[in-house]
Amino acid sequence: MNTINERVAAHQKQIEKAIQSLALPGQPSRLYEPIRYFMSLGGKRMRPVMCMLAYEMYREDVEQAIPAALALELFHNFTLLHDDIMDLAPVRRGKATVHVKWNNDIAILSGDALYVLAYQQLQAVRPEVLPQVMRVFNRVALEVCEGQQYDMDFQSRDAVSLEEYLQMIRLKTSVLLGGSLEIGVLLAGGSAREAHLAYTFGEKVGLAFQIHDDLLDAYGNPESFGKKPGGDILVNKHTFLRMAAEALATGDQVKALKQAYALQEEEGKVESVKAIFDSLGVPQKAELKKQELLEVAFDALNQMTEAKQSIREELKALAFYLIEREA
Amino acid sequence: MNTINERVAAHQKQIEKAIQSLALPGQPSRLYEPIRYFMSLGGKRMRPVMCMLAYEMYREDVEQAIPAALALELFHNFTLLHDDIMDLAPVRRGKATVHVKWNNDIAILSGDALYVLAYQQLQAVRPEVLPQVMRVFNRVALEVCEGQQYDMDFQSRDAVSLEEYLQMIRLKTSVLLGGSLEIGVLLAGGSAREAHLAYTFGEKVGLAFQIHDDLLDAYGNPESFGKKPGGDILVNKHTFLRMAAEALATGDQVKALKQAYALQEEEGKVESVKAIFDSLGVPQKAELKKQELLEVAFDALNQMTEAKQSIREELKALAFYLIEREA
Repeated sequence: MNTINERVAAHQKQIEKAIQSLALPGQPSRLYEPIRYFMSLGGKRMRPVMCMLAYEMYREDVEQAIPAALALELFHNFTLLHDDIMDLAPVRRGKATVHVKWNNDIAILSGDALYVLAYQQLQAVRPEVLPQVMRVFNRVALEVCEGQQYDMDFQSRDAVSLEEYLQMIRLKTSVLLGGSLEIGVLLAGGSAREAHLAYTFGEKVGLAFQIHDDLLDAYGNPESFGKKPGGDILVNKHTFLRMAAEALATGDQVKALKQAYALQEEEGKVESVKAIFDSLGVPQKAELKKQELLEVAFDALNQMTEAKQSIREELKALAFYLIEREA
Repeated sequence: MNTINERVAAHQKQIEKAIQSLALPGQPSRLYEPIRYFMSLGGKRMRPVMCMLAYEMYREDVEQAIPAALALELFHNFTLLHDDIMDLAPVRRGKATVHVKWNNDIAILSGDALYVLAYQQLQAVRPEVLPQVMRVFNRVALEVCEGQQYDMDFQSRDAVSLEEYLQMIRLKTSVLLGGSLEIGVLLAGGSAREAHLAYTFGEKVGLAFQIHDDLLDAYGNPESFGKKPGGDILVNKHTFLRMAAEALATGDQVKALKQAYALQEEEGKVESVKAIFDSLGVPQKAELKKQELLEVAFDALNQMTEAKQSIREELKALAFYLIEREA
């Protein structure tokens, strides 16, 4: 295990401890019990970890960053809790979602309360940087709502361009990663320039990660991936691969793609769709886009001249780790 | 028209203008359109008005209080928007609710975004008082969630005590009025002691107003009230009157009350329930409780020795106006 894993693992532990130490009231239990349940489902806690690493590029007393880092994790879970209602998702991290285990009303309200709890954590931010931190937090929060709305809009739309898809994914998943790093820098008293570069790093890594995830779902090794490939294809999900295929297809390929997506699993849907992806060079395009995004991300990181070099290297290694590549 | 109405009306206008001037993005339209719609439905805007009056007890540049006052109104509307989903309410202020005009998902998400917009307004609060203002805002926001949860819990419970009911109503409706005044004082740089007294005034007036509202629904003059009395009784709503009746009833009265509530409208349900209320002295008990609460409220107001006397008088007059009594 190398140093990056140790530091990241230590931060993950600190965040888990902070979550467990959250002093939630006992009553009304049907408000707070779902919050305890949902927060205990785990996850990689990447947003708070990234926030803490960003802080450590400038200062060593990383425990000062924990409340804001925790706020980011609470906010992220609030969005997941409400998204699960809208997406009719029965399962989250192998366990029943809140709206299934309790009901929709409980999921709406405990989600709302979870969002308040996120803002309560921000109360512990140093007053000198609180206004800046709040500005980033609020901007990102609103963008995440916009991303979810675009996602819902696109589901009932015929044609969605690759650009529109990337914009949606950027809002829904990447701005929060960017904002987590930006807030880490601001907490540590870093300059606005460095904070902005940190944001760019996080946003681009987030987008690259999403494309990587789309690739993995269709082309991942079933053994290491842990599930049958093609799940996204089977449910006609909007992914980078599908949007790229639609953008690249011409003439008969357009029709063939539509027909392949209209197949049933038993009729070889996954194989048929992937064959068209392959003929259009979609996996290559996805790899290329990933590389492009990572280059922009690392370029931003390299420009952060006030930041500690060793931690910048750790952030880079973490990005490679997330995208399962050799650093 | 006396001075209080002029000042309150002027503040209401300022808030309406601030709402109309909210620079909301155009896209995604299904996120922002419901927010514009809901905020345009009107209302007395009592929370921001109270916040502004509280500010004016200490300072004259009341426009400085507008962003925080607007944040309170946006937050209040966020809670209404989500409550309407949970309460299956089809109508709000004579117009279709968001979940009916659009759908549940849109109502959840545009509500979430409305809450972010509330926090965005707090960004304009002077950094020196921002931490204190946020602490009050977050505390009250969480209590409002707790109140809504208790309200839902009570609907599926057999017995709810008068004390539990008052606690629920306090959380669901009164703490936000109290918090609005408290924030107004803090914004103006008033002391923690004065802020606390302002909170007490608002909370008690809010509770008194709720009881007044319950009384009006059952005993109001149909001509001035504008609707048939007894609506709350017909839907078996938990009100101060019903909870007081259940607390006061003994022996046969317990059974009689249950039977009266089990009647249909055509069988004289409203009249039967009210006859029992009358025999138990429920309206008198409600009036007494109202008076008690107002006394505590005005006592707190009197103790605010740093506050401008003329504005204190206006707040008192506004409380009387809300509860339709002669000052």
